Amino acid sequence: MSLSDIEIAQKAKLQFINNIARSLDIEEDYIENYGKYKAKIDYKILHNLQNINDGKLILVTAINPTPAGEGKTTTTVGLGDALNSLNKKTVIALREPSLGPVFGLKGGAAGGGYAQIVPMEDINLHFTGDIHAISAANNLLAAMLDNHIHHGNELKIDSRKITWKRVMDMNDRQLRYIVDGLNGKANGVPREDGFDITVASEIMAILCLASDLSDLKIRIAKIVVAYNYNDEPVTAGDLKAAGALAALLKDALKPNLVQTLENTPAFIHGGPFANIAHGCNSVMATKMALKLGDYVVTEAGFGADLGAEKFLDIKCRMAEIGPDAVVIVATIRALKHHGEVLKEDLGKENLEALEKGLPNLQRHIENIKKIYKLPLVVAINFFPTDTESELDLVKKRCEELGVKAIVSNVWAKGSTGGIELAKEVIRICNEKNDFEFCYSVNSTIKEKIEAIVTKIYKGNKVNYSKSVEKEISHLEKLGFGDLPICMAKTQYSFSDDVTKLGAPDNFEVNVSKVKVSAGAGFIVVLTGNVMTMPGLPRVPAAENIDVDNNGKITGLF
Amino acid sequence: MSLSDIEIAQKAKLQFINNIARSLDIEEDYIENYGKYKAKIDYKILHNLQNINDGKLILVTAINPTPAGEGKTTTTVGLGDALNSLNKKTVIALREPSLGPVFGLKGGAAGGGYAQIVPMEDINLHFTGDIHAISAANNLLAAMLDNHIHHGNELKIDSRKITWKRVMDMNDRQLRYIVDGLNGKANGVPREDGFDITVASEIMAILCLASDLSDLKIRIAKIVVAYNYNDEPVTAGDLKAAGALAALLKDALKPNLVQTLENTPAFIHGGPFANIAHGCNSVMATKMALKLGDYVVTEAGFGADLGAEKFLDIKCRMAEIGPDAVVIVATIRALKHHGEVLKEDLGKENLEALEKGLPNLQRHIENIKKIYKLPLVVAINFFPTDTESELDLVKKRCEELGVKAIVSNVWAKGSTGGIELAKEVIRICNEKNDFEFCYSVNSTIKEKIEAIVTKIYKGNKVNYSKSVEKEISHLEKLGFGDLPICMAKTQYSFSDDVTKLGAPDNFEVNVSKVKVSAGAGFIVVLTGNVMTMPGLPRVPAAENIDVDNNGKITGLF
Repeated sequence: MSLSDIEIAQKAKLQFINNIARSLDIEEDYIENYGKYKAKIDYKILHNLQNINDGKLILVTAINPTPAGEGKTTTTVGLGDALNSLNKKTVIALREPSLGPVFGLKGGAAGGGYAQIVPMEDINLHFTGDIHAISAANNLLAAMLDNHIHHGNELKIDSRKITWKRVMDMNDRQLRYIVDGLNGKANGVPREDGFDITVASEIMAILCLASDLSDLKIRIAKIVVAYNYNDEPVTAGDLKAAGALAALLKDALKPNLVQTLENTPAFIHGGPFANIAHGCNSVMATKMALKLGDYVVTEAGFGADLGAEKFLDIKCRMAEIGPDAVVIVATIRALKHHGEVLKEDLGKENLEALEKGLPNLQRHIENIKKIYKLPLVVAINFFPTDTESELDLVKKRCEELGVKAIVSNVWAKGSTGGIELAKEVIRICNEKNDFEFCYSVNSTIKEKIEAIVTKIYKGNKVNYSKSVEKEISHLEKLGFGDLPICMAKTQYSFSDDVTKLGAPDNFEVNVSKVKVSAGAGFIVVLTGNVMTMPGLPRVPAAENIDVDNNGKITGLF
Repeated sequence: MSLSDIEIAQKAKLQFINNIARSLDIEEDYIENYGKYKAKIDYKILHNLQNINDGKLILVTAINPTPAGEGKTTTTVGLGDALNSLNKKTVIALREPSLGPVFGLKGGAAGGGYAQIVPMEDINLHFTGDIHAISAANNLLAAMLDNHIHHGNELKIDSRKITWKRVMDMNDRQLRYIVDGLNGKANGVPREDGFDITVASEIMAILCLASDLSDLKIRIAKIVVAYNYNDEPVTAGDLKAAGALAALLKDALKPNLVQTLENTPAFIHGGPFANIAHGCNSVMATKMALKLGDYVVTEAGFGADLGAEKFLDIKCRMAEIGPDAVVIVATIRALKHHGEVLKEDLGKENLEALEKGLPNLQRHIENIKKIYKLPLVVAINFFPTDTESELDLVKKRCEELGVKAIVSNVWAKGSTGGIELAKEVIRICNEKNDFEFCYSVNSTIKEKIEAIVTKIYKGNKVNYSKSVEKEISHLEKLGFGDLPICMAKTQYSFSDDVTKLGAPDNFEVNVSKVKVSAGAGFIVVLTGNVMTMPGLPRVPAAENIDVDNNGKITGLF
């Protein structure tokens, strides 16, 4: 009988985190322990390492997600372990999971099987408190905003145009739409309001893009929290909130060091939404990993159309870094799903459906190769139901595009299941690399949106409603025209239509809303509704989570 | 020019927390570091120390608080340092401050001057994340409750009789009264709702009274979150939430070890409200301190009528402990305030006003001596404006009651300012001690309320509204009649009338509401309105808080 993720994790032989840090030559002074197996590394180390060359950066991305599962994090972790086992000094850099979804349907997010980050219970629960700090900072800003209005509203904030919501790290649909400030004049000013889940907060995006504490503070001050009666932005700086918020975030800004089941060092730091934000771990953690490791394996959210696009066009642009290699993760099951096989039939060999689903992968390959001009490899994350003929078909189709597809079996075997993949990654890291962005920030907002839609998604056209047209001009007039674009689109399709699987053609993308995240430094472009506060299912995972009198947790998955 | 609290704290020469732990013979295995100067101590140590004799327990309490300030925490810290400097192995046990009020008016809460707990910035901000964990646990329960109703309400919860509120660790008046679940059937069920500040959560009271993880889980399961249409209680256990909440709290339950400016070990753990809850640090921390130290100095909230009463009648009863000595803190300024001197005149000698205010102190002395039968000493927390004649008058009036009043100047001088007080404390710890509770839990709810009002407050009578009478019978019918009482009353007066200073006589106490905190294990009796969600002032302290690029915080006080 096979073990569950948490059972495997609890059997792991962890090293003390100070030993892991020592393996990266991190001096004791920079280590802040959080228990025996977690530590924050002081960002001051970056200053001292500034003359050291960066290691190789490997971005792990994927085909468009499906209910079948792709295993991007598992592959990232396993690849890191495999590189390490080949004596390459490797550091993994991943997002930190949010608490809320752990109690709903989703379960944890620290890899799976024999390719996991540990201690998984801690990472999935409070970890080192970063997300709690972000909630506190977000909500202090909200309290200061409403307090300002309550005490006379000197800034003339139009309470119908408040853009700053409160947050909670919980799946709590009851808080999506509320009216607050009720019950008379001692208790605030009544208005429509609502909560997002914490990771959707712009503070999270800012924390992940800030280059140091002073940059963090500058970005916070720029956050647009509302518009006044003249439609001019009111910022966190106007509310004199930046210093206090930065004080709340001073430790959250320090990357968290943990380890894999095989003791490979891993920074798990920051986890912004991959739709309304850019969906990758902090710049701080990636930069630290690049200074400390010869190889750094990192991951971007969702499929390559959203995650890799934002990693490359937003994060790499701001942080002035670029990947040396890209890994696109696919599974036979997921490709068959893109070939429109029903979920219950995914375990059966079906070459026809696989052929039909392959264009999804092929389009992502072409984008990485031809738009971003980056070397890449496809990782086929192995499932026991995969047949030789299916695996061969995927390899063949990839080879036709000049790309190797390599079977990875790290879920079942750990590093040994990823050796071949690791070897190819090492090889392509030395290939020619003419990394280019998809668009120039100097184009207009519309030109940038259209570049993404036509070049990456392969859509024909972008449609804007009247109010969106107006808001785009408003944002350009306010001086936000030269920011990069953060697309919020369904992750399940290249298009904005969740039902269009594979590699759809001849579609148009409809923009429903645009807004500025001025602190993060991008324009969010929404296509359709984006849910920023999940709910719990009828039987929440929470009902099965327990802890015994020794502190051992069960029911996390 | 004198230094501010934070400046003094930042100049302190801290020892690594592992050295502090070592001074208490705590083995490395039990220490979980949170950075270099904070640690959690695993509760498993209690099991291993069970055969060790307890040290002496010293409770620091005070006269009724006034705007002039009493300095209870400062005295507690300074007394601990003084005992330590007399070579008594001393441990301090205090509440942990809440984040929200730091950004409002109140500032920090870790002592002051040269009698402080450090690192004060960390303690006042996120510390080790306990309060964030409590928020998460509280709000998971709320989300599960509303989710249950949303998915069909099998338990037949009457949404007008939900007693469980969401919490946030923020001064945010805008959230006091809200309507949530708006915007259609996908988004919950509309109802009236509201937020409390986190420390008002029953989860905080439970964490502070639990004897171990399994007791914590049992208490959580008992929480009454609502009543159904038949007026029967619906509990957290009914919602199958206890395991997940306990998992969220498993680390928060471990006491936090820090140190004073003079390196005396201090447990700072748990901080429940002192009105709707019992207002003292965790049982876990107190018990751990008693096993590790020969002397333990701890504190209860507000004045002795509320704080000491609850410490003795609730905490000591549940934890099966009792103090060896009580310190009542008073200041000349505060006593003059009780003598109805205006705030601007408190610095001037005024023996007449002092004489008029002294009965407040005298009544507290008599209660401790005659009701609780405990040895005590009065600490006069020195202010530079105090005159010899004033100090002499207080000493004389105390001596008439058979109690020493000793001047303590630990704010300005640290331990050396508390030597005389410490010596008297050591002396009375060996005095006769016939500790008795104020009431028996086997009395009826009304008898218990009346015991507190007539014996401690010296009121004549308790008045109950019709609805309160009805609720008392309801609670007794439900089997909650044998719980101790937690009075929620203004802290500024022995009576329930904030304007009655000194030692008022001939008053009646009006009960406005009763409710059960079944998990904490007490009946909350409210007299008048109790504010459980503060607001920010016109110019919040947050506006002046800042952090520099090295992480150094300014503007905390």
